[in-house]
Amino acid sequence: MKIVDIAEVSKYVGKEVVIRGWVYNHRSSGSIQFLLIRDGTGRIQGVVARDEVDEGVFELSDRLTMESSVEVVGVVREDERAPEGYELTIKDLKVFQVADDDYPIQKKSHGVDFLLSNRHLWLRTERQVAILKIRARVMKASCDFFDDRGFVRVDAPILTPSACEGTTTLFETNYFGEKAYLSQSGQLYNEATIMALGKTYCFGPTFRAEKSKTRRHCMEFWMVEPEMVFYDLNDNMKLQEEYVTYIVEEVLEHHQGELTVLDRDIEPLKKVKPPFPRITYKEAIELLKSGGFDIEYGASLGADEEDAISKKFEKPVFVHHFPAEQKAFYMKRDPQDETLSLSVDLLAPEGYGEIIGGSVREESIEVLRERMKMEGLPEEPIRWYLDLRRYGSVPHSGFGLGIGRTVMWICGLKHIREAIPFPRLLGRIYP
Amino acid sequence: MKIVDIAEVSKYVGKEVVIRGWVYNHRSSGSIQFLLIRDGTGRIQGVVARDEVDEGVFELSDRLTMESSVEVVGVVREDERAPEGYELTIKDLKVFQVADDDYPIQKKSHGVDFLLSNRHLWLRTERQVAILKIRARVMKASCDFFDDRGFVRVDAPILTPSACEGTTTLFETNYFGEKAYLSQSGQLYNEATIMALGKTYCFGPTFRAEKSKTRRHCMEFWMVEPEMVFYDLNDNMKLQEEYVTYIVEEVLEHHQGELTVLDRDIEPLKKVKPPFPRITYKEAIELLKSGGFDIEYGASLGADEEDAISKKFEKPVFVHHFPAEQKAFYMKRDPQDETLSLSVDLLAPEGYGEIIGGSVREESIEVLRERMKMEGLPEEPIRWYLDLRRYGSVPHSGFGLGIGRTVMWICGLKHIREAIPFPRLLGRIYP
Repeated sequence: MKIVDIAEVSKYVGKEVVIRGWVYNHRSSGSIQFLLIRDGTGRIQGVVARDEVDEGVFELSDRLTMESSVEVVGVVREDERAPEGYELTIKDLKVFQVADDDYPIQKKSHGVDFLLSNRHLWLRTERQVAILKIRARVMKASCDFFDDRGFVRVDAPILTPSACEGTTTLFETNYFGEKAYLSQSGQLYNEATIMALGKTYCFGPTFRAEKSKTRRHCMEFWMVEPEMVFYDLNDNMKLQEEYVTYIVEEVLEHHQGELTVLDRDIEPLKKVKPPFPRITYKEAIELLKSGGFDIEYGASLGADEEDAISKKFEKPVFVHHFPAEQKAFYMKRDPQDETLSLSVDLLAPEGYGEIIGGSVREESIEVLRERMKMEGLPEEPIRWYLDLRRYGSVPHSGFGLGIGRTVMWICGLKHIREAIPFPRLLGRIYP
Repeated sequence: MKIVDIAEVSKYVGKEVVIRGWVYNHRSSGSIQFLLIRDGTGRIQGVVARDEVDEGVFELSDRLTMESSVEVVGVVREDERAPEGYELTIKDLKVFQVADDDYPIQKKSHGVDFLLSNRHLWLRTERQVAILKIRARVMKASCDFFDDRGFVRVDAPILTPSACEGTTTLFETNYFGEKAYLSQSGQLYNEATIMALGKTYCFGPTFRAEKSKTRRHCMEFWMVEPEMVFYDLNDNMKLQEEYVTYIVEEVLEHHQGELTVLDRDIEPLKKVKPPFPRITYKEAIELLKSGGFDIEYGASLGADEEDAISKKFEKPVFVHHFPAEQKAFYMKRDPQDETLSLSVDLLAPEGYGEIIGGSVREESIEVLRERMKMEGLPEEPIRWYLDLRRYGSVPHSGFGLGIGRTVMWICGLKHIREAIPFPRLLGRIYP
């Protein structure tokens, strides 16, 4: 008999199949028991009728607790009343394990701390499964997008030597007697690899030891960071909008079911098509002022400001040309106005804020050195990075997209903790 | 005029194109200069004839040092004498930067320490570019293989709380006052996610603080770790051989050029087809003894032993059923013989040794607890892991493939340091 994924039962109507999975819910009405079974690919209701099975099977079924693991043999029936459209008339039942009857995640709502402490079990709920599947799609779409466009995936290292920009938000470790730090970004390494390969991207975890508790911050989060030789700020923004559009299209194409589980209104997602609106930082400040914000030119845009800006637009919006003094030493300045950097953030719509940060990189070693001197940054730790400007420097730019924030936006989540399988938050490293 | 990748010049024979890249070599014979240009996609020889260009262009070209960055305009010509089959008659030249004339990587052979200290530049050589491209293919093939088979990619965390198996080979960090460790494997987390999703894989960097200097060890290396509900040891081995075969096929299909650059004999790679030979650990010991090794049943297989075994076979070879006491507490024992574990390593041919380690996992909480007690392992750090056996435990298994070692084998490298963009070795964390 064929072992079948629940997602595939529609192909087996009227046939006897074997399904393996977990009991998501169990109801009994005397002579009939209803087992809602999930297997990771879907859910189906199984019906065990006392008259139609061996007495042993009926009794075994009666003992099943929530999350018990089972193998059932049954006939697939179409049933309009079933939420999933199909039902299984169970004929035989094998139990791998009767779960302890104190399964922590119940239907009643739990506090967030409790759920996070039981993240390993919380992941089994329909909503979390939907998010994990969409997250996997976002990751796959990211790799496919860049692979298909001639980018070479090159991993940046996680363990990095002493950083030039200070260590206050870095996790430190002892590397055989030397201090080492967990990488916050692969960008500097990407700048080395594009000089070998033209276009590259890295895709891995990054780390920020920020003592902040916000809806959008994790200590450990995955980033996709492409870097391109000869791309100016305009090329960079065009690539970003194509990339983000592709991700959203892929999710819409493959995950209608998951978006429904999440109660996600997909109309705003359907509007995500190039071109995205573009405003300068200066225009953003004016927009905020006219909206009642008490903000002056030069101030950083925080979460509230980003929310307000992004809500003004139906699509993701680019904010570009930030004041140079807000940005890192490696960002190139605008030749037209040296107080501005050739930088760009992409804000997701519906108040989700920044999902991408990018910039053109400074390619002159003289300018870089002067900038580092003014900011009091030591050259020694990134001597190798300066070499990239000594030997065949070229104009180039790149950006980084946060996977967790993108998933949070596409899934319509209130907090990033649900967008990551095992979130690392302030005071939270278990499980 | 069209900006063209060197890899695409065959489509533009007789046409004028723009190429941007770096000067890989520069020769001059009085009235003619030869510029070998690379752009990450390929290489082409450019010819600058004094009679055919402006004097300024000829003089500019004459000043070009190795690795100088340029944009050239020229006409593509087929030329059988050119190593790449095409030549570019240069008409115009723009220079982004004349590289400092002390470019560290010269044609003469350098010591390994010197090359590793200049890894950011060493990556630009033809050989390293070939390896990076094959590495990217191995990563893509890995994701595609599992994505296409219904696996859901779920990231395991890197920052993990206190480990139950001891901390001697772990990198430690301070997580806001708590001790945290860099993950050595995502397996335990995968065992949680398969209970939600059926089949999952994680793919990320892993860390081992081993004070060892071998040809096959890095402190930081990427692993692909699939985990599957209801897979027994045989299912597990079948999946491994399909997966490894797919990777090799993909490299052979897309990277003949790179394999040629690496002088890789591809005949052994062509033989990588299922089924792979399977021997037990016991048979492996007998094989070694008959080959003159001074080894007894119970001993671990080191690099020399693995080499000797793998050289006996033309394909990758499975060694399975290792003594239980050699293996981790979570590996299931063979019900036929409790001294054996349901474990399997895959050894690459040609003496490359272990590229995969896998096993069936113990699904009984009683057995796990007893095992942990006997080994003196505390339960508290992995209380969540034990929960997986409390609530719906099922038979399951999984494995982990090291990307660096796989690349080392497929590329035919002598040392793993070339198989990783920025290797982290003993005493080596720069650049």
